[in-house]
Amino acid sequence: MTKTSAPRWLAPDEQAAWRAYLDMNAKLTARLNRDMQEHSGISIADFSVLVQLSEHTDARMRVLELARALGWEKSRLSHQLTRMQQRGLIERANCSEDRRGAWIGLTAHGRRTVEAAAPEHVEAVRRYVFDQLDAEQVRALEDIARAVTGVLDAACAAQSPCDTTCDEA
Amino acid sequence: MTKTSAPRWLAPDEQAAWRAYLDMNAKLTARLNRDMQEHSGISIADFSVLVQLSEHTDARMRVLELARALGWEKSRLSHQLTRMQQRGLIERANCSEDRRGAWIGLTAHGRRTVEAAAPEHVEAVRRYVFDQLDAEQVRALEDIARAVTGVLDAACAAQSPCDTTCDEA
Repeated sequence: MTKTSAPRWLAPDEQAAWRAYLDMNAKLTARLNRDMQEHSGISIADFSVLVQLSEHTDARMRVLELARALGWEKSRLSHQLTRMQQRGLIERANCSEDRRGAWIGLTAHGRRTVEAAAPEHVEAVRRYVFDQLDAEQVRALEDIARAVTGVLDAACAAQSPCDTTCDEA
Repeated sequence: MTKTSAPRWLAPDEQAAWRAYLDMNAKLTARLNRDMQEHSGISIADFSVLVQLSEHTDARMRVLELARALGWEKSRLSHQLTRMQQRGLIERANCSEDRRGAWIGLTAHGRRTVEAAAPEHVEAVRRYVFDQLDAEQVRALEDIARAVTGVLDAACAAQSPCDTTCDEA
């Protein structure tokens, strides 16, 4: 990308919306993480990985597929998976038949953990987010998120060489 | 908190909005971080700390005040500040006159770094977020974020004992 001569600074209403979004995001992430640690003994990052696996066929995914689904850098996911394997939440199986990387599978302990954590987490999401929003705001949130994700996915698809989280699994 | 007998699961539209929000958030964070690393050699976490300090009187803040402004756990901030100090972006000064913790100050190198990174970052935020939204959606985003942050701040204020990010600095 080339530098533009003059940056298009945000207008006051955009600046206010952006700061409010960053503030919400930081506080919501911290609060949901704290609540989950307290009630279920796992982090939101643990939970996100377990949810992805539990919803997938055979409860297993390739590392790159998981990185893409979570939107995480591969190095971050790799550290996360090592810690989760040590705690018996997931297991790894190397696949000799191709080069597309190891399979990550949900263990029985991992499944029990995600099933036990889900009800409290949903209650927290409802309490902090959806109890505060009316139906129009719920629709607006989805529309905003889809519009932003659309341009990010397009930027990712156009990128060459592509980073890990855009790679085909 | 006591366990409720039946969790109030999310309705389909809420579930769709929540997943879209999580997806946007993961992808936007990853993309803004990658762009900033590429253009400016610092992470979004580095940038967030530098922005807070640069906007503060005398370009210095106490650690707890900074943790609260960022919405971060104190342990995360502590690791982050150690790395930033090693790279000469910030400096620490212990304050012997009271027990409210060290001051964190912006160095000249830190100020040059944040000023150099800001234009590209604003351009990226505009490209990925605000170029995708109309004026009504910008207003809706701010309203949604303020509603959620309001209940999180209230939950934080009601908490006892309070965690670090709620503490008075």
